[in-house]
Amino acid sequence: FHLTNGRHPQEFLNQKSNEWNLSLHNKEYATKMDEHDPIGDMRKHFHYPKLNDLPNVDKSRVNPDDECTYLCGQSLGLMPKRAENYVLSSMNDWAKIAVYGHFLGSNPWAKCDYPCIPQMSLLVGGHMKEVGVMNQLSTNLHFMMMSFYQPKGNRYKILYEERAFPSDQYAINSQIELRGYDPNESKVIVKSREGETYIRTKDILDVLKREGESIALILIGGVHYYTGQLFDIETITRAAHEQGCYIGWDLAHAVGNIPLKLHEWNVDFAVWCTYKYLNSGAGCIGGLFIHSNHFQSKLFKLNGWWGNRDSTRFAMADGKESVLIDTELGANGYRISNPSIHQCATLAASLEVFEEVGIEQLRSKSIILTQYLQYLLDTEINNDSVCTFKTLTPTDPRQRGAQISIRPNEITAQQLHDEMEKTGVVIDIRDDIIRIAPAPLYNSFYDVYKFITILKEAIITIRALRLKH
Amino acid sequence: FHLTNGRHPQEFLNQKSNEWNLSLHNKEYATKMDEHDPIGDMRKHFHYPKLNDLPNVDKSRVNPDDECTYLCGQSLGLMPKRAENYVLSSMNDWAKIAVYGHFLGSNPWAKCDYPCIPQMSLLVGGHMKEVGVMNQLSTNLHFMMMSFYQPKGNRYKILYEERAFPSDQYAINSQIELRGYDPNESKVIVKSREGETYIRTKDILDVLKREGESIALILIGGVHYYTGQLFDIETITRAAHEQGCYIGWDLAHAVGNIPLKLHEWNVDFAVWCTYKYLNSGAGCIGGLFIHSNHFQSKLFKLNGWWGNRDSTRFAMADGKESVLIDTELGANGYRISNPSIHQCATLAASLEVFEEVGIEQLRSKSIILTQYLQYLLDTEINNDSVCTFKTLTPTDPRQRGAQISIRPNEITAQQLHDEMEKTGVVIDIRDDIIRIAPAPLYNSFYDVYKFITILKEAIITIRALRLKH
Ligand SMILES: Cc1ncc(COP(=O)(O)O)c(C=O)c1O
Ligand SMILES: Cc1ncc(COP(=O)(O)O)c(C=O)c1O
Repeated sequence: FHLTNGRHPQEFLNQKSNEWNLSLHNKEYATKMDEHDPIGDMRKHFHYPKLNDLPNVDKSRVNPDDECTYLCGQSLGLMPKRAENYVLSSMNDWAKIAVYGHFLGSNPWAKCDYPCIPQMSLLVGGHMKEVGVMNQLSTNLHFMMMSFYQPKGNRYKILYEERAFPSDQYAINSQIELRGYDPNESKVIVKSREGETYIRTKDILDVLKREGESIALILIGGVHYYTGQLFDIETITRAAHEQGCYIGWDLAHAVGNIPLKLHEWNVDFAVWCTYKYLNSGAGCIGGLFIHSNHFQSKLFKLNGWWGNRDSTRFAMADGKESVLIDTELGANGYRISNPSIHQCATLAASLEVFEEVGIEQLRSKSIILTQYLQYLLDTEINNDSVCTFKTLTPTDPRQRGAQISIRPNEITAQQLHDEMEKTGVVIDIRDDIIRIAPAPLYNSFYDVYKFITILKEAIITIRALRLKH
Repeated sequence: FHLTNGRHPQEFLNQKSNEWNLSLHNKEYATKMDEHDPIGDMRKHFHYPKLNDLPNVDKSRVNPDDECTYLCGQSLGLMPKRAENYVLSSMNDWAKIAVYGHFLGSNPWAKCDYPCIPQMSLLVGGHMKEVGVMNQLSTNLHFMMMSFYQPKGNRYKILYEERAFPSDQYAINSQIELRGYDPNESKVIVKSREGETYIRTKDILDVLKREGESIALILIGGVHYYTGQLFDIETITRAAHEQGCYIGWDLAHAVGNIPLKLHEWNVDFAVWCTYKYLNSGAGCIGGLFIHSNHFQSKLFKLNGWWGNRDSTRFAMADGKESVLIDTELGANGYRISNPSIHQCATLAASLEVFEEVGIEQLRSKSIILTQYLQYLLDTEINNDSVCTFKTLTPTDPRQRGAQISIRPNEITAQQLHDEMEKTGVVIDIRDDIIRIAPAPLYNSFYDVYKFITILKEAIITIRALRLKH
């Protein structure tokens, strides 16, 4: 599943269809794609929920022993099977050697975040010292903004995208207030054009050209949680720097989903959570990136003992003020408290799965898989005889990750969601849109095929019910 | 083990000695105390490390199947046996129902911090709404200081105790800098008198009277991590308020160790970790208290989506600024990110053990147990024929928790520690002092007796070795 330079995934799909003499609409096409999927067997590393265990499933209509159709990895990733052993081995150390576990045992707790760094660095394209795992996303965002939001004179605004994740907006508002500015006058919100569903890069660049001098910080969701848009991080970052702005990215929906090159792109900082495409479990530890350009700078930061080197952690020379980011520690200089053995265990388990595949290979499959979803949505569903819907996500594969967001017309997202739930489809609904994300690590082409079949049936059922009333 | 009004625990110990006609120095005295210990069987709820599993144990000198002598609960609490099941049941939900686990399953993740609140509130003496579990100690300290450190005009200093925990000092320095003040000129450090090892309450009150008007915030470790001193939280809090200062307490070494009445004492805020006396595992989730007096006030705070009510979490009305602390949510309004299922599971398991005993009963035993330790230290060790040492901890039981800190003369703490380790005694060493903490939940009188016996042997061995050289 390799797409040579910029080849469109639809071409790839069509080519296979020709090769095999199988229509894209044919179930066998899906299963044959799965047979040829070089990473198809990664699915075995995950616990796949069974229909029998899920709520709202109509057991008269399904085989309860079947696996569900899980297309919700952008919300909460499935559990890697090895997570259990990782956690138990951490607990075994605790049980057996108690306080000695800080420095001995299967994964000494005092450094239990370190094993996560190499793979995490690969996933975000950062040097090892630029990447740390600590706290959670919104908390890390606050700590990063303490460093990178330094309004002064006429440069005091924060630019972000419309419908930024609520937590980010709360953080932005608080930080503006903290610095004594009026949030109502200190925010620049970039929007999609009238009638469009996502934001043009050009429009962001134009705003930056026009208002860049007033902007202290830019914060954008790398892959947008709502629309699924993948922003052009490199171009926007360059434009930000041309205007003298700092720029940070919320990568909650990007990490483990698309390849990132944060160092190369000169991103100032980034934050992310690990419970979505990274499959670490609800509320698990977050990650952050800070570019090595800033290691020597005098950025202010909030300190805690764990941001020190091991050797100076307990020292507190009188009169010692806030430490500059320690060049030896880099991103780890932002750690505040000691790492959580509970969280690092599942994260390490999950990252090990990524190690087997690599993000490039994942992305190759993902582009093809999501295009397959898009194609079937467009051809089988989005017409007057079934149900029209609006696609919010860019149709250009380079401008999206795994997820496609749609807003159905005529019937409601809730009706659709509820009807599909009965046959064991797990998708996400927010307001009047449905977000569908095939995760390339554990989703198959057959999952997508099945989803489309069930979706069609669901629409027909809903429409028939409505005619009856 | 009930001490009626202010009765000295030594009296209780002596009375038992008389009753049973057994000397306090007798091994049978210890085992008889254990037999009569009403909560002695709580030990069975914990994994007790075996000598065979510990490093540096000389296996020729001990029975490897024996349990170690663990007197290090003030550093890292032992693992409650039920923790494993709690974690596994959380993971089982994840495996079986994936994203549905947020609202369904054995302990719905979106609210997995809530089951910890009732017992936590009892432990700190706060109303349920005043208490939250989130983040970790130093992180919570930063978020609390964002609200409670609001320097203005001549009132800008932070008062704290000498040798405050390093992380607290880092936090204090950062916060002072954040507000644009010079840390060197903005700190008031209360100290013990020349030749004394702990700080007199009177001296704190005097400083407050003298310098109170310049002090914006007071932050003290409720039970001091180094000296073991238990401060008079109520009196100092009252004096702080008389001077118009806010006061917060670092309760890392106090929670689960001594009964607290934070609400009644009018404490403004407190923060704590849960991996010491609360036995939740290294790096587990922290707690915080904010007095209901402040629920209606306009304290600034840094916000995240989880500090909202469930119903408004996703809403982000444009122009909505930082939310006041929601009176419905109280302390939970300080939550930033979604709770960690990994951490809440072990904490809940541990708190369940406390529920069976109650902090009052624990404290009764603790006072007697630590006095027994003190008595044996004083009578069996601290003399010229064995080894003199300096006790840093107040000898008044009302001014200490479980821990006693000693600084040996003539031989080094490191020598002692290393020698005792060989026979499986687990104690904490920092600089030139040894910290010994019998945790009443899982330590017995026999543990203390054995500790003293081994300590004495160790000293004799070390001295003999030195004579030889
Ligand atoms: C008194 C005290 N304060 C603060 C801390 C820091 O805790 P954390 O790493 O959970 O922030 C500790 C840790 O041992 C402590 O003992
Ligand atoms: C885009 C985005 N940003 C931020 C968050 C907040 O995450 P946390 O609760 O880990 O701070 C989320 C959570 O879903 C998210 O999707």
